[in-house]
Amino acid sequence: MTITTALDALEQVLGDRLSRSKPDLTAHGQSESHFPVTPPDAVAYPRTTKEVSQILSVCAQHSCPVIGYGAGTSLEGHTAAISGGVSVDFRDMAAVIEVRAEDMTVRVQPGITREALNEELRATGLFFPVDPGANATIGGMAATRASGTTAVRYGTMRDNVMALEVVMADGRIIRTGSAARKTSAGYDLTALMVGSEGTLGLITELTLKLQGQPEAIGAATCAFGDIEAAIAAVTATIAMGIPMARIEFLDAASVAAVNAHSKASFPEMPHLMVEFHGSDSAVAEQAERFGEIVADFGGSDFDWATRAEDRSRLWQMRHTAYWAILGWKQGAKAIVTDVCVPISTLAQAVSETQADIAASPIPAPILGHVGDGNFHAILLIDPDSATERAAAKDLAARMAERALALGGTVTGEHGVGMGKLDYMTAEHGAGWDVMAGIKRALDPQNIMNPGKVVRTNG
Amino acid sequence: MTITTALDALEQVLGDRLSRSKPDLTAHGQSESHFPVTPPDAVAYPRTTKEVSQILSVCAQHSCPVIGYGAGTSLEGHTAAISGGVSVDFRDMAAVIEVRAEDMTVRVQPGITREALNEELRATGLFFPVDPGANATIGGMAATRASGTTAVRYGTMRDNVMALEVVMADGRIIRTGSAARKTSAGYDLTALMVGSEGTLGLITELTLKLQGQPEAIGAATCAFGDIEAAIAAVTATIAMGIPMARIEFLDAASVAAVNAHSKASFPEMPHLMVEFHGSDSAVAEQAERFGEIVADFGGSDFDWATRAEDRSRLWQMRHTAYWAILGWKQGAKAIVTDVCVPISTLAQAVSETQADIAASPIPAPILGHVGDGNFHAILLIDPDSATERAAAKDLAARMAERALALGGTVTGEHGVGMGKLDYMTAEHGAGWDVMAGIKRALDPQNIMNPGKVVRTNG
Repeated sequence: MTITTALDALEQVLGDRLSRSKPDLTAHGQSESHFPVTPPDAVAYPRTTKEVSQILSVCAQHSCPVIGYGAGTSLEGHTAAISGGVSVDFRDMAAVIEVRAEDMTVRVQPGITREALNEELRATGLFFPVDPGANATIGGMAATRASGTTAVRYGTMRDNVMALEVVMADGRIIRTGSAARKTSAGYDLTALMVGSEGTLGLITELTLKLQGQPEAIGAATCAFGDIEAAIAAVTATIAMGIPMARIEFLDAASVAAVNAHSKASFPEMPHLMVEFHGSDSAVAEQAERFGEIVADFGGSDFDWATRAEDRSRLWQMRHTAYWAILGWKQGAKAIVTDVCVPISTLAQAVSETQADIAASPIPAPILGHVGDGNFHAILLIDPDSATERAAAKDLAARMAERALALGGTVTGEHGVGMGKLDYMTAEHGAGWDVMAGIKRALDPQNIMNPGKVVRTNG
Repeated sequence: MTITTALDALEQVLGDRLSRSKPDLTAHGQSESHFPVTPPDAVAYPRTTKEVSQILSVCAQHSCPVIGYGAGTSLEGHTAAISGGVSVDFRDMAAVIEVRAEDMTVRVQPGITREALNEELRATGLFFPVDPGANATIGGMAATRASGTTAVRYGTMRDNVMALEVVMADGRIIRTGSAARKTSAGYDLTALMVGSEGTLGLITELTLKLQGQPEAIGAATCAFGDIEAAIAAVTATIAMGIPMARIEFLDAASVAAVNAHSKASFPEMPHLMVEFHGSDSAVAEQAERFGEIVADFGGSDFDWATRAEDRSRLWQMRHTAYWAILGWKQGAKAIVTDVCVPISTLAQAVSETQADIAASPIPAPILGHVGDGNFHAILLIDPDSATERAAAKDLAARMAERALALGGTVTGEHGVGMGKLDYMTAEHGAGWDVMAGIKRALDPQNIMNPGKVVRTNG
């Protein structure tokens, strides 16, 4: 067995930091969404880039699959060890290496979580803005090109990763990008690695752009009579160029789930949850302009979360909405859709989706980062019901087709993993073959997270 | 001859839009900097993506080199036909395909220039912000990952290209990205193509992000006693987070050249040229905050360019500074350096460079987009003097080494072409081999702009 011989060789490198304990394997084979538990054969806990390089060299020699592992919060089965092999857990590579306040950058190891990073940055007056909700690791966020609630203002991981250290499939260590704010020095390997989901290499260090902590922050919620009015308010807000820091949509079902889970008492109507960043006067001006738009579309007065702890609670509720929704139906698993469409088509995409859900047997609350045109329907299914699974699959397929027909994408931020593979031909056509060509060139043995993002045996 | 048979086959496709006229060949073999004239064997003028695909299919069949051609304003020998072949000139593919005002995006063909695009957008209230100075084509700007004076506020081509249509080396037509504001659907082929300098494919369509025309614009110049003070004012301005739309540095020699060329009368001292965008109140506030910093560093009062025509004249002077400097020394050719460093190291990089220039026999005015840490020394040489060429090469090499030692890049915005090839190993190490691996995978015959960006026969 090639994997067995690889594991023996890896044990020489890592000693007891190569784990084969059953609970460890199961934990690394689990998923937060609907994918079955698919454990690896071992879990490696490297401490240095050199060790990661040794792991890759050994695995290349023995054709052993390698799966990068952060916090395990991905939603498309990214970390499932579907061909067995070694899960490389970056738990022990979680340091802040260097803060450069004057350059507004930070170098970190991949295993640090976004909350831990921002905790470490607190005293500097700077923060890392990308916030996918889950307390994911920075390495995992880069690998999946994560974004979330603040992307409307600060961009996604694509926009906030400046440079990387990556260990390639053959164990070579490369550095991509630079510490300068821009470069034209050849192919953008940083951008190629961000979003490659561990299929081209393992990220062992990241240089990130930071933002100044805003002088003032305002957060508020407002309710609307129907989905259309809420979405129309969003598109008007974006068209006006109001620099929203967050503008989140929750439909009535999502609000009901949040109320139940977080003991809140929002009116069970479609809501926007928003945040403004800037100087005191800028926040006041943004809030006033946004308030006028909300009023135009019949929205309620703002319910302000003025104190920092109220804001934290508000975003905590938003961030746990997925769990709230999941808890809404006993024993349910979730199929999470993640379409993103041009903002001009958002109202159509959301209302057609809502009608489609209403006509299906599946409960599916809708919520999302609508300032980017990105929204999710959380399709709740009994995992043992073939009927429900089939109905959910159909709903998800129609959402994906609708997004593509409108010029959008089937995944705005969750990535491809296994869950979106079947849509890649429809989304990319021959471009997907080009991706496979790159994969074959950089990972000829297909040991890097095989079975994700691309198909190479076609 | 494979090229000859290719040209015959191309004539079948293009008729008299395949030119072999001597003046045409010479024009397409010229460079705006120091590279010798290197004409192609023919110039193709396709009108459609399909024709571009046919050109590539024919050239792949006959192993004939293909060089994309826009406005010919690149500075690193990008369009030189060093292995002969066909220059594909996008002159006849220069249309605006679709403006989507609500999405703030536009789809264009690659041959449109940035000035023509902004002319067409004028009535929409939107504009395309990337401004490299030269009236380059949008396709060429994407291919070289151009940026320029406004990148400090609006980013580079990396940040402003959302989607592409690309014809690959075998004639396949692919679409990358989507019209949505973000996507996680696999490898970022858009970012891979932007900055690939025609070595991986030819761009035949681009979807660009647009910006709202600012309500108010303010532009001003101010003079400083020495370079150090001017640069210190820049780093302080960036650290304060003042959202400068432009912040350009010119040393005294650059100012003298501009004065002579544009019949201006700036004091011959180091200058900053700046621009503010925003609401009336925001521009006033930015100008006030910046003014305080300038005063702190002993800069002069602002000389405001208040009327639109004065602003145009100011930026026209900045944009023609390269020509002004070139005209400063009779018969000179320029070797243009393009380093970009972390902003915290900018003062050191500029002052060490200045001292190095002062100790050399080469006149070399310094200017640049210092808000990004990017600056150029224009090394003026007598092209027939081996001594001057050697001295300039040494100066350029030391600037490059200095930039790399400070964590920066040897090219912030001009690209690699032929001129920066020799620095790629120092900048990227094994990463450059990874780039070559991608090149070999996507262009196995090495027909796409051979000899640029990567070396594949190593």
